[in-house]
Formats: sequence, C-alpha cells, structure tokens
Amino acid sequence: MIIALDGMGGDHAPGEIIQGALESLNEFTDIHIHIYGDEEKMAPYLQKHERLKVIHCAEVIEPDDEPVRAIRRKKDASMVRMAQAVKENEANAGVSAGNTGALMAAGLFIVGRIDGIERPALAPTLPTVDGQGFVMLDLGANADAKPEHLGQYAVMGSIYAEKVRSIATPRVGLLNIGTEEGKGNELTKAAFDILSEAPINFIGNVEARDLLMGAADVIVTDGFTGNMVLKTIEGTALGFFTMLKEVYMSSMKTKLSAALVKNELGGLKNKMDYSEYGGAGLFGLKAPIIKAHGSSNARAIYNAIRQARTMVQYEVTETIHETIGKGLTK
Amino acid sequence: MIIALDGMGGDHAPGEIIQGALESLNEFTDIHIHIYGDEEKMAPYLQKHERLKVIHCAEVIEPDDEPVRAIRRKKDASMVRMAQAVKENEANAGVSAGNTGALMAAGLFIVGRIDGIERPALAPTLPTVDGQGFVMLDLGANADAKPEHLGQYAVMGSIYAEKVRSIATPRVGLLNIGTEEGKGNELTKAAFDILSEAPINFIGNVEARDLLMGAADVIVTDGFTGNMVLKTIEGTALGFFTMLKEVYMSSMKTKLSAALVKNELGGLKNKMDYSEYGGAGLFGLKAPIIKAHGSSNARAIYNAIRQARTMVQYEVTETIHETIGKGLTK
Repeated sequence: MIIALDGMGGDHAPGEIIQGALESLNEFTDIHIHIYGDEEKMAPYLQKHERLKVIHCAEVIEPDDEPVRAIRRKKDASMVRMAQAVKENEANAGVSAGNTGALMAAGLFIVGRIDGIERPALAPTLPTVDGQGFVMLDLGANADAKPEHLGQYAVMGSIYAEKVRSIATPRVGLLNIGTEEGKGNELTKAAFDILSEAPINFIGNVEARDLLMGAADVIVTDGFTGNMVLKTIEGTALGFFTMLKEVYMSSMKTKLSAALVKNELGGLKNKMDYSEYGGAGLFGLKAPIIKAHGSSNARAIYNAIRQARTMVQYEVTETIHETIGKGLTK
Repeated sequence: MIIALDGMGGDHAPGEIIQGALESLNEFTDIHIHIYGDEEKMAPYLQKHERLKVIHCAEVIEPDDEPVRAIRRKKDASMVRMAQAVKENEANAGVSAGNTGALMAAGLFIVGRIDGIERPALAPTLPTVDGQGFVMLDLGANADAKPEHLGQYAVMGSIYAEKVRSIATPRVGLLNIGTEEGKGNELTKAAFDILSEAPINFIGNVEARDLLMGAADVIVTDGFTGNMVLKTIEGTALGFFTMLKEVYMSSMKTKLSAALVKNELGGLKNKMDYSEYGGAGLFGLKAPIIKAHGSSNARAIYNAIRQARTMVQYEVTETIHETIGKGLTK
C-alpha cells in the first residue's frame, strides 16, 4: 500500500511531517510513503528508508491562499501533486496538514467524488468525556446541505465508524434542537425521515448538549452547523482553561493547588484536544484523503497515516460506493 | 409601573418566585407586582405588601405541555393570565420561569408582535471570560430564519444592549463560519449585506470560537444555530466540570488540591452559568416579556424583574417600533 503525503502542509512542516512519516514506516511494515515537497527544505530532516520516496515539488499552498484558485494555479504544489498521485492510482490514499479549504478543493476537483455521492464531507473524530470520541460530519466541506446529503453523510459515517473505529453497529444520531421526532428546522425535519429509512442504526435526534457525553457514535449535520458546534467546543474549552489559569494564579494557595494537579490537568487538556483523535477524513472521495490538524506534530501525522492505512485496508471507499449504489433505504 | 409575574412557572415555584418578587419590591420602590397563580399553593410564601397584588388562577402550564395547545386550552393558567394582563395594558411587562415554548407562544399569540417585526426572537445574555457577557439572538424562538429576520434581530439586539446594558455603540456581529466577508451559507451571506446597511454598529462576521472571549456585544444568528451554540456551550462546560471532578477525585493528592481551590472553582462555575446574567428577553413583542431560567431561584427572579423594569423604563419596545418603522437601512 502506498500513502501520498504532503510534506509541506501545516505549522510544523516539513520537520514534524517527515518525523511522523518515519515513525509510521517503522510501525507499519506494509506501507510505502511517497512524500511531496521541497527537497532542499526537507533534506535536513530526511533519512534514507527503503519504503520512503521523495518527490520534489517547487510550490506550496499557503494557509491564506484562496482554496480553489490555489489548486488550479499552483500545479506543482506539494498538496496538488499528492492529490494527483492519488487520482492516478500511484497512491492508495493521501494525507495533508495544509490549508483545509484547498485540500477539500483538491479532493473534489482532483481526486473526485464516488459515483452517487453528491457532496464529500469533512469528518473528524471529536472528544467525549469517556475518551471514546464520536465521528461528526459534515464539519464544513459544504456550508449548505440538502436532506439527501445528510442521508449520504449518515451512511458514510456509519461505515467509517464500523470499519475504522471497530464499532459493531454504530449509533447514528441527527444533530437537532430537541430529541423528539418532529423537532427542528426544515432541513432536519426532512432529514429525519431519510435517516429513518437509511441502512444504518439511526437512534434519532441528538441535542448539542449531549455530544460530549457520548450520545452517539456518529453525528450527522450540515457543514454550517457542524462548524459552529466544533468551534464552540474549541472556544468554550479555551475559555475554560483561560479562566482556570486565572483561578490558579490568583494566590499562593491556589498556586500550590495547581502544582499538585499539574500533570492531571495536562491529561484533561489532551482529552479535550480533538487532534489527539487523529485527522479528519474527507469522506465521499474516490480514495481516502485525511486532513491532519494544521498544528500537527509527528504524533498527529503518524495517527493520520495510520487512519489512511486503516481506511484502505478495510476498503471504506469501496463499501461506501456499494452501499450508496443500493440507494438510501434498507 | 406594573410587572405581571407568573407565580407558578419554573422548578422552584412558587416559593422562590414569590421570594424574588418581594426582594424586587423592596429594592425598586417604583414597581408594583401582580402575581398570577394558585392562591392556596402560594399562601405559605406570601407576605402582605402594599405593592403586591395576588390574582388567583386555577391552572398551570407544565414543562412538558405542548406549547401552542397549552396556551389555547388552559385559559386560566398563570402564564396565560400574565400574558393577557400585559396585552390588556393592565401590566407594562411580564416575567415567567415556565415552559419556554409556551411563553414564546403566549408572547406571539396573546401579547402580539410589534408592527414591522416578522418574528420575535429569544435573546439571553451569555457569559464571557471577562464577565461582561453578550446578547445573542435568536436562541430558538424560530428554527428557520430569512436574511431580513436577521436584520431585525440585529436592530433589536443593538437597542437592547444600548438601553439596558448601557453600552454606547454596541458591536453587532453576525455568527458565521469565517470572519471574511463572503464566507457562510446562503442565509449568512445574504444577511451580511442587510446588516451592513442597518442602523447599527455592524462589525462583520464573528466565529463561534471567539464568542466567549467577548468578540461582540450582540451576536445575530438563526434560531437553529443559536440553539446549537448555546447547548454546545452548556454541554462543553458540563463535560469539563465532569472531567475536572474526576481529576480531583483520583487520588489523595488531587483531593487536597481540590480543597484548596473549592471556593474559587465555585466562582468559575457561576461565571459560566448564564442564568447569572438574567433572563432571556423575548424581543419584538408589544411589551417586554422576560423568560427566567427554569431553575431560577429568588435571585434569578429578582434579576428578571429588574431587567423587565429597565426595558420599560428605557422604552425599549417603543424604540424598536420607531427604528424598524424607518426600515432596515441607515
């Protein structure tokens, strides 16, 4: 199996990216990695490895590049070349920690959609209090969605949770403003009916309040709402740690208290950090593409590569294709 | 000024409701309170007060009553009678801690909308890290919204922030998936143009991540998204406290640490509790109606009454009416 890796994407590229690639190669003897990037910049971090191939690219997509234009114009960008390799079957899957919008555009316009999937979806695994996490989609690949798109998201998320997260019959929930049937806006009311018929274990509506408590294994929503929820979790967690820090710095007594739980609180912070749960899958494309967090270190890249490998191994793309081909009913 | 109070709504009715009313009467000598409820049940908590009038009602709207049906059938419910009193100008404003949906229905069908306002909006003040808070609307009065509704929400929120929260030129932000103009779904893209023209201090798009950091004084969004954000904040805060508790209970050392910061952490919990910031206003009705939190204690009821009083005093309803009458442009 060959995994194409964008060596230049992310805040800590190329050093941490290469380090993550080397760790993956040591751990998984069944993978080859093709790394795309600026050879000169990557040279200080590279080691010879028989299953690592370096492909030089002269360009890089920057974090503030306009996604679609960047993909079209920077033909020799590491991310574009990575996606091209996946499209041309030179690699089985791709991984990048670069510009999210550009990666979604590369997925859509270069790798291409699975027949029958109208919109790909961005699907990270988000944290829960019990550490199990849940897959949520769409997290912003498409701001607007139609009810049938939510049906496709549900099927893709369920297949992923089963194959990659090893959950026998994943509980799929529809994010909504109330748990009762009949609640919601026009989109969720119509989606409820579609999800009820879909070949999944649909458990009904789930409220945002219950997400972190592990209310479902897969949560389905439109990209706008998903983005809101994700960023609200991030903002609330950040606000919380800011206030906690203020509390701990307020007196000698509280500083002493902080010293006693420093390690434990660090663990809590990691638990709330969704980059710990691996990268976000771009579901619905002709091959697995994983978006690693922009701030990915070697460990996060290792996790993203492992995730891509599992998706190839358990034929997630093929299963989505087959299931969607049979239609959105049981 | 007369404030109509639903004596039977909320988890701690009627005891805490009456206690809150009595505290308000002692603090504000310019208000009279008309309290609606079951005389027999209220009797043990009542004290004679020259500015307190008790009106007996035989029925109560329960938390799980279907809102519109309850309002229509339970004509002698404390909440319905309270709204009726406001409609018939027997009271200048109304306060209830009861069933949110029923109160919104009572506001819409009994009190009625201000001419020119198509949809009333539910607008609580949410917490920020610096303790200032921000007004957010709509938080679920209407699941679906059109761009022009968001324009009306913006004007109402701005007037409220100026008059009641004493902010000279409130910063009004549009909740969106990115800060740049042109970002968003169909609704927010169209709303951006309307808000740019509206007679407010529009500061552009605000991301959910920045809400708790005080990115704006007024945040405008549709009811579905608002509900998602509010419940995600609640759920994340709850998840956080659950995990914090686990950390503190894990060993003797962490238990000692917890004992040292117990009081300070309680303060932090209060800071994150939006019921501390008063009730949620139902904006766009012909008179101020305040929804106090269902778990309101006497202090929360006192705050909600104070809020209603300030809205009457500073003629928030009249100002909304006049401003909207001039149209949504500067």
